[in-house]
Amino acid sequence: MSNPEVTPLVPREGWHVMHLFYHVDHAQWSLYSDEEKRQAKTRLTELVQEIRSTPDTHLLVFSIATPKADLGFMLLTPDLQMANSYEKQLTLSLGAGVLSPAYSYLSMTESSEYTTTSAQYAEETLVAEKGLAEGSPEFVAAMKEFDERMAHYLKHRLYPVLPDWPVICFYPMAKRRNGGDNWYSLDFEARKNLMAGHARVGRTYSGRILQLITGSTGLDEYEWGVTLLAKDTIDVRHIVYEMRFDEVTARYGEFGDFYIGMQLPLDVLFRRICL
Amino acid sequence: MSNPEVTPLVPREGWHVMHLFYHVDHAQWSLYSDEEKRQAKTRLTELVQEIRSTPDTHLLVFSIATPKADLGFMLLTPDLQMANSYEKQLTLSLGAGVLSPAYSYLSMTESSEYTTTSAQYAEETLVAEKGLAEGSPEFVAAMKEFDERMAHYLKHRLYPVLPDWPVICFYPMAKRRNGGDNWYSLDFEARKNLMAGHARVGRTYSGRILQLITGSTGLDEYEWGVTLLAKDTIDVRHIVYEMRFDEVTARYGEFGDFYIGMQLPLDVLFRRICL
Amino acid sequence: MSNPEVTPLVPREGWHVMHLFYHVDHAQWSLYSDEEKRQAKTRLTELVQEIRSTPDTHLLVFSIATPKADLGFMLLTPDLQMANSYEKQLTLSLGAGVLSPAYSYLSMTESSEYTTTSAQYAEETLVAEKGLAEGSPEFVAAMKEFDERMAHYLKHRLYPVLPDWPVICFYPMAKRRNGGDNWYSLDFEARKNLMAGHARVGRTYSGRILQLITGSTGLDEYEWGVTLLAKDTIDVRHIVYEMRFDEVTARYGEFGDFYIGMQLPLDVLFRRICL
Amino acid sequence: MSNPEVTPLVPREGWHVMHLFYHVDHAQWSLYSDEEKRQAKTRLTELVQEIRSTPDTHLLVFSIATPKADLGFMLLTPDLQMANSYEKQLTLSLGAGVLSPAYSYLSMTESSEYTTTSAQYAEETLVAEKGLAEGSPEFVAAMKEFDERMAHYLKHRLYPVLPDWPVICFYPMAKRRNGGDNWYSLDFEARKNLMAGHARVGRTYSGRILQLITGSTGLDEYEWGVTLLAKDTIDVRHIVYEMRFDEVTARYGEFGDFYIGMQLPLDVLFRRICL
Amino acid sequence: MSNPEVTPLVPREGWHVMHLFYHVDHAQWSLYSDEEKRQAKTRLTELVQEIRSTPDTHLLVFSIATPKADLGFMLLTPDLQMANSYEKQLTLSLGAGVLSPAYSYLSMTESSEYTTTSAQYAEETLVAEKGLAEGSPEFVAAMKEFDERMAHYLKHRLYPVLPDWPVICFYPMAKRRNGGDNWYSLDFEARKNLMAGHARVGRTYSGRILQLITGSTGLDEYEWGVTLLAKDTIDVRHIVYEMRFDEVTARYGEFGDFYIGMQLPLDVLFRRICL
Repeated sequence: MSNPEVTPLVPREGWHVMHLFYHVDHAQWSLYSDEEKRQAKTRLTELVQEIRSTPDTHLLVFSIATPKADLGFMLLTPDLQMANSYEKQLTLSLGAGVLSPAYSYLSMTESSEYTTTSAQYAEETLVAEKGLAEGSPEFVAAMKEFDERMAHYLKHRLYPVLPDWPVICFYPMAKRRNGGDNWYSLDFEARKNLMAGHARVGRTYSGRILQLITGSTGLDEYEWGVTLLAKDTIDVRHIVYEMRFDEVTARYGEFGDFYIGMQLPLDVLFRRICL
Repeated sequence: MSNPEVTPLVPREGWHVMHLFYHVDHAQWSLYSDEEKRQAKTRLTELVQEIRSTPDTHLLVFSIATPKADLGFMLLTPDLQMANSYEKQLTLSLGAGVLSPAYSYLSMTESSEYTTTSAQYAEETLVAEKGLAEGSPEFVAAMKEFDERMAHYLKHRLYPVLPDWPVICFYPMAKRRNGGDNWYSLDFEARKNLMAGHARVGRTYSGRILQLITGSTGLDEYEWGVTLLAKDTIDVRHIVYEMRFDEVTARYGEFGDFYIGMQLPLDVLFRRICL
Repeated sequence: MSNPEVTPLVPREGWHVMHLFYHVDHAQWSLYSDEEKRQAKTRLTELVQEIRSTPDTHLLVFSIATPKADLGFMLLTPDLQMANSYEKQLTLSLGAGVLSPAYSYLSMTESSEYTTTSAQYAEETLVAEKGLAEGSPEFVAAMKEFDERMAHYLKHRLYPVLPDWPVICFYPMAKRRNGGDNWYSLDFEARKNLMAGHARVGRTYSGRILQLITGSTGLDEYEWGVTLLAKDTIDVRHIVYEMRFDEVTARYGEFGDFYIGMQLPLDVLFRRICL
Repeated sequence: MSNPEVTPLVPREGWHVMHLFYHVDHAQWSLYSDEEKRQAKTRLTELVQEIRSTPDTHLLVFSIATPKADLGFMLLTPDLQMANSYEKQLTLSLGAGVLSPAYSYLSMTESSEYTTTSAQYAEETLVAEKGLAEGSPEFVAAMKEFDERMAHYLKHRLYPVLPDWPVICFYPMAKRRNGGDNWYSLDFEARKNLMAGHARVGRTYSGRILQLITGSTGLDEYEWGVTLLAKDTIDVRHIVYEMRFDEVTARYGEFGDFYIGMQLPLDVLFRRICL
Repeated sequence: MSNPEVTPLVPREGWHVMHLFYHVDHAQWSLYSDEEKRQAKTRLTELVQEIRSTPDTHLLVFSIATPKADLGFMLLTPDLQMANSYEKQLTLSLGAGVLSPAYSYLSMTESSEYTTTSAQYAEETLVAEKGLAEGSPEFVAAMKEFDERMAHYLKHRLYPVLPDWPVICFYPMAKRRNGGDNWYSLDFEARKNLMAGHARVGRTYSGRILQLITGSTGLDEYEWGVTLLAKDTIDVRHIVYEMRFDEVTARYGEFGDFYIGMQLPLDVLFRRICL
């Protein structure tokens, strides 16, 4: 698959991410013989295996709820040349015209510019809530543990490993720039404080919601892509609803459409979408 | 239909709800022989029966007014895996390419966070309007009756049984977040009071309009889906028009498109949409 | 056509109204033999006759200007079940896939909540402009005449008979709910006064423009449908332009797209749209 | 072409104007034999000649830049019945399905309600800039000349003769009605003054840009259509850019999409769009 | 290719620019025999060579990330007649219906009206940062060098030579005209100062991002087209994100969709998009 003539497009840090949602054109599919259908499904299955065996590359495959799409992929890989090659092959994998794009999104993993907030939050918490004296051995130990978790968190944002939880939710997002509600006219400190409140809500869903925010300013029509993995759709609904009351969302959040998928083994997926 | 390999996605409370609106592609349909058409209608009929015999599962079937769609389903069922499976089968039930999606919506039944309002409203009403002394036996009896009705109402919101009234109206809805009109910047008390006025209007349509509000924040492009069942379209028009003057709608309501359907037996429906 | 199994959906007052605009797919049409084309045109002609012979039912048929649509119908009939049945048949009348929907609109005739304004306006006019003493025999006679015209007008709004003037203009409309320009936050008196000015402009076009406003809140994507019948397009342009300066439109009017049609006999219409 | 059964729809003043932009469907075109292609081009050529030989009727034909459309017509003719007939024939002239509508616009030529401004401007100019005493023979002669030019200008607006300059630019336009920026809430004097500044910019492009503003309030989705004819695209870009700083545009202008065409002889045009 | 009957449309200064993005219709492509596919690819290859050998003409060819498009061209050439001819041929080069337009944009190279800012910036920098006395020989030499670079820069804006860096990003842009945030109501000095800050950010990406801004007011739906060439997508993301905090963008920037492409040799490109 790799092409000696093309220089890879690997960013200095992080990976490229593509969300790919398709309609299945069953009228086109029904023109195939049973043998051709079997071959098409084998082709997609082998392509998924090939992509998953590429270093530092992850591919989630899911069925999508409601007819706004049928089949979805989330591809994370360092090299944009390879991502582009895989994406065009996935589109064609079931035969020309069988998968027609419903929506897609290009973004990149990124570290957060506001994460120092969390360190500060940790110190405040250790002093105020746990009663640890600043500089005490317990405080130092707790901060060391926190720093390790933070390093792990930052690594996770740039090079995430996503769990196989069944529910996947994707939506694109931007920050508002309207009259009195202009996120990009706020200074860094104000934005950091707003984001800290936002993060506090997120932490209460730890273990139930895995949230991955990827940057797309200059790459696609919104500024970020948000991927949520969950075990129960009710948690997706609750976290997005609860965050809507955060000032950072209430005043500054703009959203695209929301897509709900279910991660499934390929054979189950094929039956689900009636292939 | 159930799949032993797939863990069901049943929420901690409530059901998943899908609204599915389709165009009929008669050019595709006209390619079928009479026998194939008969088989296709039988297939859809049997699928509807199968879905309706699934525990805790309801399926409304309706013709849609004006060519913006032809055929609609409203599916309520606990497990999203099953909803997804049924939805893909419904889309294909009349043959590949015959039903093409016009619009769809994913939501979940939910209890209202503002229902304590109604309890408070009951107390006030009993004291102010009916002249019952707070704590008197009559007051206690009336409150008990109220509590039972409220428990029934809350159960209805999470596990609704919808009447077979002929008119169904669906529209998606969100609350505005614009400059001075920002619902999500209001505190709980303010929102509760605004919703109480809204509910008061709703109650005056009791027996004529059955309203079901389902939550879709994080699930689809708006924040709620609204389903109205009625015996006369004039009641649909009046309740939506009257509520528009409520501050909660006048200042904070954002609406998607409105779909009007008629619940019909399948054989009548097939003739209605010329199948 | 009527179906004994289906209870009619006739509103307590007024009629259902559908505006139906179609593209003609000439590539599909060109697949028909001359005989099939003749049969298709006969089928549409007979359907139009059948609809027009239904009690309390009117059907306007028109060619549409510019390729944004080709063929239009405006259907007024009490029973929504019947309207739905006729609409699906009209769509298919020329053969599957020949007419493809360009836009459609569902509304209902309604009386105006602001018409008492006009009575008040009449009294003021009789006193101020015509110099009649309030209560004088001339005043009483003039008011009686006015009341009769008003009763006629109100009946016309609910059960209109539309003239066969050649130009038909349709557009959907809503009232704005934005910050300082929120129609639904105004009290009734303020809205009544604004509407009175609006009505005054309308009266100056009497005999040249027949205006029918039908309600669609809760039924379709805007809140009203406006149908103008005229003898000269210049009058359509002038009345809509002049009303735009009315405060009720300048501050509160929101419009959808405008469609201009020409009422034509069916045989002329077929030649016009090259069938 | 004229139809004895149909009463013409000729406005009291001015002409009807249609802008018609099409995509060429080359897949459909490629199904034709060389002979059929030759016949199709002859059919369009003859139709163009027939339209151009209709009294008071003009037809511009142009290739359109970028794939947002391929082929464009601008039709000016008094009778809307005839415009409608010609437009449907133009759409079909190359065969069913070959031309598919990309965008279209219906408007009418109109005189400007603000042109007295120009008379006043003339007087001021003669006094202030040319030093002519008001009422002097030179002043009277100059005003007479101005009046003649103005009469010519007004006639041109209602019954324009468009030059064969190669570049044609079309865009639809409306005036804003938003909070503090509400054109329709300004009084006539304020609008007249704003328009006068606008006209001053326009005059500096005299001889390089021919601008025709046609009215479409009540006829199509915007309120005016603007047609610019030019010899150099740079003049189109400059005049539209320069006018954007005019208060009348900066605060009140709303624009649709812009289309750039090149007037070409039909044989050159056919080669240009690869027919 | 040049046509003796058609007068070229070469602007007084600068070139015409077209961005052309296409979907590949593989269902259409799969109908071709291997020989026809080979011929189609040869036809596109020869057309690209012909365009590239046209004087003062540049053509970038690229694969596009995510299924929102597959294949892109950026064409710079003086004559709009020729650009139009090439564009129609490119669309058809792989056979009728194989390339279907996804998005396109027409603009022209232009010099900046705000570049004197940069001269002023240079003087200030030489005095303040480098400590050169105004008028000193070092100052004069540095200013001369600056002037040469500026002349080069201005020439580059009108007659750019674009590097073969692998990443190309395109997006259209306009300046806002909304209530308090109205770019076109600012005076020249205010706009110049805002643009200077913007340019300062741009210079920090020198050598990593090549930015070309082309004017499209009056030509297409936005006011400018922005083309970024880069070696790493992360630089695209960073520069667009960083500039969003500039007041000129935060308060006045409006953006269309963003397209990310990869410049590739034609043979690699064909394999990439599975032709």
